[in-house]
Amino acid sequence: MSALTIKNVTFGDGGLTVMAGPCSIENREQLLEIAGAVKDCGVKVLRGGAFKPRTSPYSFQGLGEEGLQYMKEAGSLTGLLTVSEVMDSCDIEMVASYVDILQIGSRNMDNFALLKKVGQFGHPILLKRGYMSTIEEFLLAAEYVLKEGNRKIILCERGIRTFEKLTRNSLDLTSVPIIKKMSDLPIIVDPSHGTGRADMILPMSKAALAAGADGLMIEVHPNPKKALSDGQQTLDYSAFQALMEELRSLNAFLSHQYADLSSARLRAL
Amino acid sequence: MSALTIKNVTFGDGGLTVMAGPCSIENREQLLEIAGAVKDCGVKVLRGGAFKPRTSPYSFQGLGEEGLQYMKEAGSLTGLLTVSEVMDSCDIEMVASYVDILQIGSRNMDNFALLKKVGQFGHPILLKRGYMSTIEEFLLAAEYVLKEGNRKIILCERGIRTFEKLTRNSLDLTSVPIIKKMSDLPIIVDPSHGTGRADMILPMSKAALAAGADGLMIEVHPNPKKALSDGQQTLDYSAFQALMEELRSLNAFLSHQYADLSSARLRAL
Amino acid sequence: MSALTIKNVTFGDGGLTVMAGPCSIENREQLLEIAGAVKDCGVKVLRGGAFKPRTSPYSFQGLGEEGLQYMKEAGSLTGLLTVSEVMDSCDIEMVASYVDILQIGSRNMDNFALLKKVGQFGHPILLKRGYMSTIEEFLLAAEYVLKEGNRKIILCERGIRTFEKLTRNSLDLTSVPIIKKMSDLPIIVDPSHGTGRADMILPMSKAALAAGADGLMIEVHPNPKKALSDGQQTLDYSAFQALMEELRSLNAFLSHQYADLSSARLRAL
Amino acid sequence: MSALTIKNVTFGDGGLTVMAGPCSIENREQLLEIAGAVKDCGVKVLRGGAFKPRTSPYSFQGLGEEGLQYMKEAGSLTGLLTVSEVMDSCDIEMVASYVDILQIGSRNMDNFALLKKVGQFGHPILLKRGYMSTIEEFLLAAEYVLKEGNRKIILCERGIRTFEKLTRNSLDLTSVPIIKKMSDLPIIVDPSHGTGRADMILPMSKAALAAGADGLMIEVHPNPKKALSDGQQTLDYSAFQALMEELRSLNAFLSHQYADLSSARLRAL
Repeated sequence: MSALTIKNVTFGDGGLTVMAGPCSIENREQLLEIAGAVKDCGVKVLRGGAFKPRTSPYSFQGLGEEGLQYMKEAGSLTGLLTVSEVMDSCDIEMVASYVDILQIGSRNMDNFALLKKVGQFGHPILLKRGYMSTIEEFLLAAEYVLKEGNRKIILCERGIRTFEKLTRNSLDLTSVPIIKKMSDLPIIVDPSHGTGRADMILPMSKAALAAGADGLMIEVHPNPKKALSDGQQTLDYSAFQALMEELRSLNAFLSHQYADLSSARLRAL
Repeated sequence: MSALTIKNVTFGDGGLTVMAGPCSIENREQLLEIAGAVKDCGVKVLRGGAFKPRTSPYSFQGLGEEGLQYMKEAGSLTGLLTVSEVMDSCDIEMVASYVDILQIGSRNMDNFALLKKVGQFGHPILLKRGYMSTIEEFLLAAEYVLKEGNRKIILCERGIRTFEKLTRNSLDLTSVPIIKKMSDLPIIVDPSHGTGRADMILPMSKAALAAGADGLMIEVHPNPKKALSDGQQTLDYSAFQALMEELRSLNAFLSHQYADLSSARLRAL
Repeated sequence: MSALTIKNVTFGDGGLTVMAGPCSIENREQLLEIAGAVKDCGVKVLRGGAFKPRTSPYSFQGLGEEGLQYMKEAGSLTGLLTVSEVMDSCDIEMVASYVDILQIGSRNMDNFALLKKVGQFGHPILLKRGYMSTIEEFLLAAEYVLKEGNRKIILCERGIRTFEKLTRNSLDLTSVPIIKKMSDLPIIVDPSHGTGRADMILPMSKAALAAGADGLMIEVHPNPKKALSDGQQTLDYSAFQALMEELRSLNAFLSHQYADLSSARLRAL
Repeated sequence: MSALTIKNVTFGDGGLTVMAGPCSIENREQLLEIAGAVKDCGVKVLRGGAFKPRTSPYSFQGLGEEGLQYMKEAGSLTGLLTVSEVMDSCDIEMVASYVDILQIGSRNMDNFALLKKVGQFGHPILLKRGYMSTIEEFLLAAEYVLKEGNRKIILCERGIRTFEKLTRNSLDLTSVPIIKKMSDLPIIVDPSHGTGRADMILPMSKAALAAGADGLMIEVHPNPKKALSDGQQTLDYSAFQALMEELRSLNAFLSHQYADLSSARLRAL
């Protein structure tokens, strides 16, 4: 696997790279506060939605370009990289003028017009797996971007739709080691969307690392119960801090174990 | 239910309105020939893909704008309405300059930026159900278009993704009577994509009419084995002609039966 | 296709063979009343559950053998055939001493020990499709019975589990024409379980006939709101009578149409 | 959580309890050899199928009672506990006379007659999640056993059926921490069936431990390519030995980390 470096942040080198922030950007003060809080916990990339793909047109649709201005300011003040979703191929240039990484959301993984254009534009991409897409289709969506010459792609497993009702999605962690075999793109896991439950973020983050993920994307909010969207799958600061400590320790162990055992394991397999 | 009329074609008035044509527009001569053939069978709307959403970027992507020029010519020569897919919100005006109805494909049902813009633009829309979307999500996608003031929407059930392997999708015909209860938009059924098998188009077309569908969308090609895409779910001319005869007869029976029995049934239910 | 005759009732000869009755047998008087009511509507087979497979052990589990005694009495008084579920291979002989047809329920389609034993025992079988089984697995389950020498099998499509939430299951009607091509066993459809909604039974029964089904299985109760199980997918007498009239008329049309058109269609396909 | 002890083996006390052995028992010599090999790797329970639930009646159905005799001998010689599947409620007493733990397979999770009888019989149970069952249905299946007074139940997550094609099932690891919250029964994970791929067993075993699983069930065979069933998801001895070393090390780390961090984490959540 070849690592991907965006500015001062590297994905896929064995380190633990975490993207965190609110589901939706709600206002300037809040975003700046969250940015500082997650940076203190060791986060490298600030996430925040300005254009929100909502099932109903009557749900909160995000702050739009105003939200992106706050992202840019938060990135400048903290030194964090920033990532936000682009939903419309007409908006690529505009969104890219504010954030370091363009997110292609799960509902747009099959939006081939958008994939081609972000491929041509060349900005780094976070490509989320469609909740209805096979692993092969996921890799072929990345191929739409790669074919245009843009190799700055981070993949993100975020769960698939099944019949299970106690979780919002079924987090398909087997995709992580399969993609590691089939592709050299880094892959992170989003346990917030992948489970839809705040109480499942810690165990499934640990499972994601053990399965070989290069990083995580986690929703954080000072008061999840008052978040404008997705509060039920969002951690508050103290839970997030405890999670980051536990994950750093686990990642150090796994990296060490991998170095120790890989030669023996490779002989055996 | 209120019927929708586009030029001289009405959807949802108890008649059988069929859209037919090739999966992909392959060249001018072929499209004009197919247009004449399906018109002779009683079709009212010519379908044909110019921009094709393909899983792999290395598959045939369609003729693009050149294909739309052939559609416009075929429509003028035959008097058929025309429908073709728009995949990119930047292309709406261009595609609408060539065809009477803009198709929003299954993979773009969640492309809310596209839905809003076709809502604002006002051209008639054929909205296909996402292959992993619930009926409620399908109706909310239509709501994105309606909210912008565009009521010229035809819905299309085209099957959902399941674990079944003998069919390409599982055709969820129960969506038809449910949508008839929840919405006043006309709804047609696409048994070509809904089953992925030419031999299933006739029985499932009949089932769709019996379930209450206002029309059908069917792929037709002079030589399905040589079609550039989706040949295995495409009828040739003679099979299509036989199908249309059988469907017209069934639809006449169902309309008559409905008129006879509806008052008795309404008392009973 | 070869038709299957059990006593005086034939499945698969182009006629409309309907099984109807309560989800659960609740008491003697009620069962006898329902038996008379459905017979008057043209039903040939009385259904009724005595051993109920319930998700929770704390739900009503059925009357057991007492219920089967009422089934036998109802069959004798009305001349209807009777069908009831056997859940345990140890009970086959006992259940078969009361009813004409042994039902293997959806949850037991993979219970291969049970399939082998009903195959050896030789009593007629109603085999329901597993709600998460492919069509191929469904036919292989029938093969377990056939392999032991028992060819008296009626298949029943009853819907599969998907992500859809407005229906209890997704009724996969395409299985009907596929099974007609792959097998010579008769196949009926259960729109009560297949949709979970009383208001969907009529349209989906019509769709099932149009797709080629040999019959239907429908839950009927004098007062669905007070039924001990599955009341929301059960018709009362007057709705059921109206449904049977409409279905008889449709089936007569379809049989006639098939005789008229089949030679032309067979040439075309 | 309360731990469950069967003879000298405890499940749910923080240790790593692994069940391993061949998918099918093929002959006496082979089973005794495998038993010795997996014991040397630290395994506590020998698995082996004598009655095999196969989709087709023409596939190898297992050695039956003869296979169970070999299991009993292998258990006696090695001191390993033994587990094998019972498929028919009539066979419970017979199977229990040979093995320490009765497995209820995925296809029989909804076989309520079997669940009630193993509940009454009282022998320890390994209950596998139905591949079509929700987590709630899984726990209610266990409730059928518990209600009869048998609390000696080990749950086993083994993947669910989805649309994904690169894996045999989708391993739903989120069920592990959810069940830990909702139940005090121990839960293990079967990555062999859960992925259907030998190359995914190591990463998904690690992920299972990180998610909180109490143990694992893994298929082992001296020559997977020649196994009579499921060879593609089976490890050979050297791969299994390497896996066990890596898992022991990870489990020791996780237990240590849990002891260190749990109080801080509990405060935060």
